[in-house]
Amino acid sequence: MTTRWKLTIEYDGSGFCGWQRQKSDVTVQQVIENAIHAFSGENPTLHVAGRTDAGVHALAQIAHFDLEKEFEACAVKGAINYHVKPHRVVVLKAEVAPPDFHARFQAKARRYRFIVCNRPAPLALMAGRAWHVVRPLSLAPMQKAAALLIGHHDFTTFRAKFCQAKSPLRTLDVLDITQDGDMFTFDVKSRSFLYHQVRNMVGTLVMVGTGQMSFDEFVAAFASCERANGGVTAPPEGLYFVSVDYD
Amino acid sequence: MTTRWKLTIEYDGSGFCGWQRQKSDVTVQQVIENAIHAFSGENPTLHVAGRTDAGVHALAQIAHFDLEKEFEACAVKGAINYHVKPHRVVVLKAEVAPPDFHARFQAKARRYRFIVCNRPAPLALMAGRAWHVVRPLSLAPMQKAAALLIGHHDFTTFRAKFCQAKSPLRTLDVLDITQDGDMFTFDVKSRSFLYHQVRNMVGTLVMVGTGQMSFDEFVAAFASCERANGGVTAPPEGLYFVSVDYD
Repeated sequence: MTTRWKLTIEYDGSGFCGWQRQKSDVTVQQVIENAIHAFSGENPTLHVAGRTDAGVHALAQIAHFDLEKEFEACAVKGAINYHVKPHRVVVLKAEVAPPDFHARFQAKARRYRFIVCNRPAPLALMAGRAWHVVRPLSLAPMQKAAALLIGHHDFTTFRAKFCQAKSPLRTLDVLDITQDGDMFTFDVKSRSFLYHQVRNMVGTLVMVGTGQMSFDEFVAAFASCERANGGVTAPPEGLYFVSVDYD
Repeated sequence: MTTRWKLTIEYDGSGFCGWQRQKSDVTVQQVIENAIHAFSGENPTLHVAGRTDAGVHALAQIAHFDLEKEFEACAVKGAINYHVKPHRVVVLKAEVAPPDFHARFQAKARRYRFIVCNRPAPLALMAGRAWHVVRPLSLAPMQKAAALLIGHHDFTTFRAKFCQAKSPLRTLDVLDITQDGDMFTFDVKSRSFLYHQVRNMVGTLVMVGTGQMSFDEFVAAFASCERANGGVTAPPEGLYFVSVDYD
């Protein structure tokens, strides 16, 4: 009798070459799958709601896997957290899910956060946790440009060339930008995102915020549906996978 | 013609054996003094507003030193930040101070923050940045006990045995405790603190918050002026030196 397990996972992306298992390199998937094997003797595959690149963090990533043997939920959580040491990944919750639950395909919305630290001096405490932008940033022009992206659009301008999605159409529900001193936070929500969409949107909005791109140029770039007209790709270390909504 | 320089410094305490220069071990003072020597050829001593222990962080530590040669402020800042790499310490500001300025003796108030993360699961993103407390914490009992500490008192109950201050009397201006989900923040302000005073106050208040110490026991412990009656010393990784006030 197979049990489907749902995990809620936090990780510091700095120490990982992203989510997905690779031949060499330490990845989040590999570290957790190895931990599951260590306590269960089984070799299940983890399916994740949002694969993340090297350096990207997660506050509440969701993944599922199947086990043949029976375990208590607190034992699954405790055993994984014991065996993943010393890697900076933690299972916040382990729970039994319905047999047809799928972390990726049943996700109704994904939330990401991107943090920019805007100051002349390099980062000490936020190194690896935020994008360090030196040119002074203005909040209002970024908010004005961000408002255009809300809704159902062709996001090719913000889509990585090697994105494998069939369609460039996505519905962006939220893109809130807030400022607290020299920290700027971008909160986004969508059912799903194109590859590098969040980082490309943030990189382009920051160019609007520094004045390197005008509002009219931003409008034209978005309408052109040409990645070459978009701005830079913001670096991974500012990006946080926040949470997933399911029915 | 000697110039007195004032530095505002941020550091991640995880990578340092505290502020003070030691024979072996990497300390903040040593790394910055070496950086000053590297660009100036001089060997000044850094005087700091608040020496911190191993693992304690700083958002805006203040230190001063003297140089014989003349430099532009932006050159001093840039040169130190270049030469301290790859250590996680950053000069946020370098400015010329009056010849009689003293980072330690002229400080009118020091602010510290202590962060507690209260949850069953270990910490991934906040590892080394907060005290991980597993037992459920209640805010109100901690706030009630904290209110007693405000004002001019004998703080022997919260004073490390090897504290070298002449008097155990201190005036605590602020001790605010706030909660945001599973994160508790303790903000304190005083002209000066006894050795380990902040960590001992927080450790004892957390015991009140978990119910391990009653309010009456807290009152009696504080009045007894006996360190043995106080609670545990909170670990250094939750402590942040926030800022210093000068006239």
